Amino acid sequence: MMIGRKDIAAAAIRIAGFVRHTPLLRLSAPDLGIGTAVTLKLELLQHAGSFKPRGAFNHMLSVNLSKAGVIAASGGNHGAAVAYAARALGVRAEIFVPTGTPAMKVARITSYGARVVQIGATYAEALAASRECQSKTGAREVHAYDHPDVLAGQGTVGRELEHGAPELTHVLVATGGGGLIGGIAAWYAGGAQVISVEPEGCPALHDALRAGRPVEAPVGGMAADSLGARQVGTLMFPIAQAHVAAAVLVPDSAIAAAQRLIWDRLRLVAEPGGATALAALLCGSFRPPEDARVGVLVCGANTDPAKVIEA
Amino acid sequence: MMIGRKDIAAAAIRIAGFVRHTPLLRLSAPDLGIGTAVTLKLELLQHAGSFKPRGAFNHMLSVNLSKAGVIAASGGNHGAAVAYAARALGVRAEIFVPTGTPAMKVARITSYGARVVQIGATYAEALAASRECQSKTGAREVHAYDHPDVLAGQGTVGRELEHGAPELTHVLVATGGGGLIGGIAAWYAGGAQVISVEPEGCPALHDALRAGRPVEAPVGGMAADSLGARQVGTLMFPIAQAHVAAAVLVPDSAIAAAQRLIWDRLRLVAEPGGATALAALLCGSFRPPEDARVGVLVCGANTDPAKVIEA
Repeated sequence: MMIGRKDIAAAAIRIAGFVRHTPLLRLSAPDLGIGTAVTLKLELLQHAGSFKPRGAFNHMLSVNLSKAGVIAASGGNHGAAVAYAARALGVRAEIFVPTGTPAMKVARITSYGARVVQIGATYAEALAASRECQSKTGAREVHAYDHPDVLAGQGTVGRELEHGAPELTHVLVATGGGGLIGGIAAWYAGGAQVISVEPEGCPALHDALRAGRPVEAPVGGMAADSLGARQVGTLMFPIAQAHVAAAVLVPDSAIAAAQRLIWDRLRLVAEPGGATALAALLCGSFRPPEDARVGVLVCGANTDPAKVIEA
Repeated sequence: MMIGRKDIAAAAIRIAGFVRHTPLLRLSAPDLGIGTAVTLKLELLQHAGSFKPRGAFNHMLSVNLSKAGVIAASGGNHGAAVAYAARALGVRAEIFVPTGTPAMKVARITSYGARVVQIGATYAEALAASRECQSKTGAREVHAYDHPDVLAGQGTVGRELEHGAPELTHVLVATGGGGLIGGIAAWYAGGAQVISVEPEGCPALHDALRAGRPVEAPVGGMAADSLGARQVGTLMFPIAQAHVAAAVLVPDSAIAAAQRLIWDRLRLVAEPGGATALAALLCGSFRPPEDARVGVLVCGANTDPAKVIEA
């Protein structure tokens, strides 16, 4: 079940009419003042404010959807993506989110016409509740990360990035449940070094790689609503073992500083999870070699700008 | 003194190390819900939050700067650009802005180490005050729009746009004093139709084209701080007569709706002047022909996001 470049290329064709090809922004070394030139992939400009529609569309376009529609559990961004995709494809969506999900993410989901159920303290609890509901309604589950279609869909980010910036030697990606980095690592498959960046409060991939298997990890800190999976997916884990070059951790202070820098220099609003990859360059938890060409994925926008600006 | 493609190509080389090559975002017809596909040039991601550094750098790199530094009058964005460029080039900058300039634009200017003088009710009054000061200090004036170097610098936006999206048949550009559209029209020179969009409250180019010469026009409405020149530049006017296909007006309500749409769909914060070109498609003051390929310049970000979101 390990996905590869063929699955991702097929996904790219499948979803092309439904997702945005997001732009790159090349910044010189002095520009951000972080000592290295970077190429940002502005995936926060994707529909629904994050990369998640790629996987959601790829899954929903690969199966036969019934009148029962789709059901998903999410910290917020995946739910918004499934709701967006369901509206585009004309089916019902029911989204389960933990009670701590930011109000603006809940508002996004409902704005696409989906039903939202706020339940449980964590993503894992919302997932359990969604599965109980699914067994009654027969709706199609769209998993937030642990499904081959979802992995392949998220991998299209890597494909676009390589096509637009073939010179990159290192690609920094924030990791939650691992769907995004799993897809991207499956695309690059050793071509460029894919670096996982997680908040210290949500070290699921970092801990899994140490343990040699997915293990339960803490869920906390400012990026928990987008990166707070308790455990990485079983499908992404062998991909990560094979093709993720390093898994580094960053403190919340670096995430907040990265959000602030993205606002100050670019006037872009990135949510904490969206700024986490860049944070690794700010705090030095990842130090690129001198001749590196570094790509950084800015993968989510769904936060209240006031929180970024006043921080 | 009419500038042309050669001047703009030379400017692009001159400023390449100092400005960002801003990205394009291609959106399908259903995406923004405005009935037409558009290619957005995200020039709001430029240094200092607007296109203005292009002209400022091109001018300041073309002259011999002395210890007296530079001086400029501005509604805010040009001042921020000159301050940014002065810091990059290691010279002093003094910026005159009208008293109504938004606080965040003043803060931007001072953040780059320039001295700010807030004086006069309009840009024209701030300009008069800056010239009185200039006659004493001997600083180099960097005009906000009516200088060939500035026009050629702003024209590099058109050059990048044509290189990135050669298929475009129509390019929508917001007009204030006319530096940006003058440069872009000089670049395209009939290749694609360049459409001027102005707020109803600031119709300087619209009125000038009717009168057959630059004339004084009202300055008012929500975009006045970036588009509120009383009169278009004398250098841009013959270019506009030759190469601007139409000059349309939009109400403030359409500008606010465009800002809101850019936020809702893209999570980008555009200032009123930055959303004005798109507003022409929203309110129908410009209706592209059926086979048109439309480019829209989103040219400024300097506003308080709360104003966009709560509007």
